[in-house]
Amino acid sequence: MSRTVYVNGSYLPEEEATVSVFDRGFLMADGVYEVTTVIDGKLIDFDGHFTRLQRSLTELDITNPMDRDAWLEVHRQLVAQNGLDQGMIYLQVTRGAPGDRDFIFPDPETTAPTVVLFTQSNPALVDSPKAKKGIKVIAIEDIRWGRRDIKTVQLLYPSMGKMMAIKAGCDDAWMVQDGAVTEGTSNNAYIIKDGRIITRALSNDILHGITRAAVLRFAREAQMQVEERNFTLEEAKAADEAFVTSASTFVMPVVEIDGATLGAGVPGPLALRLREIYIEESRKAAL
Amino acid sequence: MSRTVYVNGSYLPEEEATVSVFDRGFLMADGVYEVTTVIDGKLIDFDGHFTRLQRSLTELDITNPMDRDAWLEVHRQLVAQNGLDQGMIYLQVTRGAPGDRDFIFPDPETTAPTVVLFTQSNPALVDSPKAKKGIKVIAIEDIRWGRRDIKTVQLLYPSMGKMMAIKAGCDDAWMVQDGAVTEGTSNNAYIIKDGRIITRALSNDILHGITRAAVLRFAREAQMQVEERNFTLEEAKAADEAFVTSASTFVMPVVEIDGATLGAGVPGPLALRLREIYIEESRKAAL
Repeated sequence: MSRTVYVNGSYLPEEEATVSVFDRGFLMADGVYEVTTVIDGKLIDFDGHFTRLQRSLTELDITNPMDRDAWLEVHRQLVAQNGLDQGMIYLQVTRGAPGDRDFIFPDPETTAPTVVLFTQSNPALVDSPKAKKGIKVIAIEDIRWGRRDIKTVQLLYPSMGKMMAIKAGCDDAWMVQDGAVTEGTSNNAYIIKDGRIITRALSNDILHGITRAAVLRFAREAQMQVEERNFTLEEAKAADEAFVTSASTFVMPVVEIDGATLGAGVPGPLALRLREIYIEESRKAAL
Repeated sequence: MSRTVYVNGSYLPEEEATVSVFDRGFLMADGVYEVTTVIDGKLIDFDGHFTRLQRSLTELDITNPMDRDAWLEVHRQLVAQNGLDQGMIYLQVTRGAPGDRDFIFPDPETTAPTVVLFTQSNPALVDSPKAKKGIKVIAIEDIRWGRRDIKTVQLLYPSMGKMMAIKAGCDDAWMVQDGAVTEGTSNNAYIIKDGRIITRALSNDILHGITRAAVLRFAREAQMQVEERNFTLEEAKAADEAFVTSASTFVMPVVEIDGATLGAGVPGPLALRLREIYIEESRKAAL
């Protein structure tokens, strides 16, 4: 069965879901996105994603085309129309299609933002085989632009990094800048040493993960020690445990970093405990 | 009259020129482009652009969907069908639309690259009012990714830079990294001091301009001194002349850099002479 996709106010069969070739998302990567996870047909941390979307749009001087309740309604419609039980809702907003190509922003009075949303079903999100085994990551240089805090669609390098990882027989890549790990290709990165959870502090260098914020809050509530600071690749390779967080992987244990096996090479107890807490608490608060 | 646009083998009215929302150009900026100038209905340096397109695609592991002659034929068809006398042909190739979103590249056996081309008419390219007055540039920090030699559609920051320039009452922005000028938002940057033309050497830091290559060749043939090396913003502000080059602006004199007026604040003689030579020689060699 064909998915139903939302494009600029219409619910369409996915084969008919198109945008103009003049869309600035297509021509200039002038757009932002969010991915919200669905469990039991309900949205995880919808308001966190809505708030970050608003921030990304503000940073790029794009007016948010819908208010919170309108966004929520589209999300729920897509869940219902696609019978989505477990998976993700992807949303993208671009500066729109002004009818020609120009580095100068189009007049927002005449060019409305483009809005696209679609579902991705994934019944194995919660009961993930990967989370039981843990993932392996390689290290690559972080050569992305300087505003990774804005969730833009400039994902070419993260996508290339993912391919480098796969070619190396691994699952993902951790990016390293001036010796310190920034983040994974589509997730925030953490190490655990002597019971302390260490992750890079928020800045323009990394995405301000919605799942990151929730996981750190749950960790502190569970009396775990959290240090928000830079950590080096060498530190990571000598860690007791490691994990990544993202909307769609929750807390995903990392068992190998750039060739170095962590501990016994299996998911660590703190990472697994955090995954459990995160899923449990998120389910309770889902909309 | 509506333009005729080329999309994946079809010549379509521009209103019908669309791509899938799953196109990796739209979702991940996973695509490259070229802009070829048309004068007198003929293509300027077609082979230079074709060669660079091939290089960009190779760097991204995308198979070139057409050979030189097929590309030339589409360019000529668009010129003919749109009655283009003076202007540009924009072309974009993306990794295609695999039908879903994934950081992992789609299998090229089942997902073909997307090809889009369209014309932009501009009767004032050669006889440009801006070239007679010269342009003013501001300086901004260069925060783009580390592979600017690949002509990708990741143009959000250059577009933001253009807007910063316009808000400052200027025409364009020169980007500065570690104190040295890299390039303009969509052009290569040059200063002239004591008769010597100075421009940054080729590396991953800048676009390998097709117009840059031609202009430097013409300059050397005309016995002008050329130095390919980094230059600082301070050096630029103290230059005798300055200019930028790009396919669509040829050689464009710069008369003000970050608030400092160069010389008498009018286009310099060497820049104007280079513009003349470039246009004359390019017209002769046009296809």
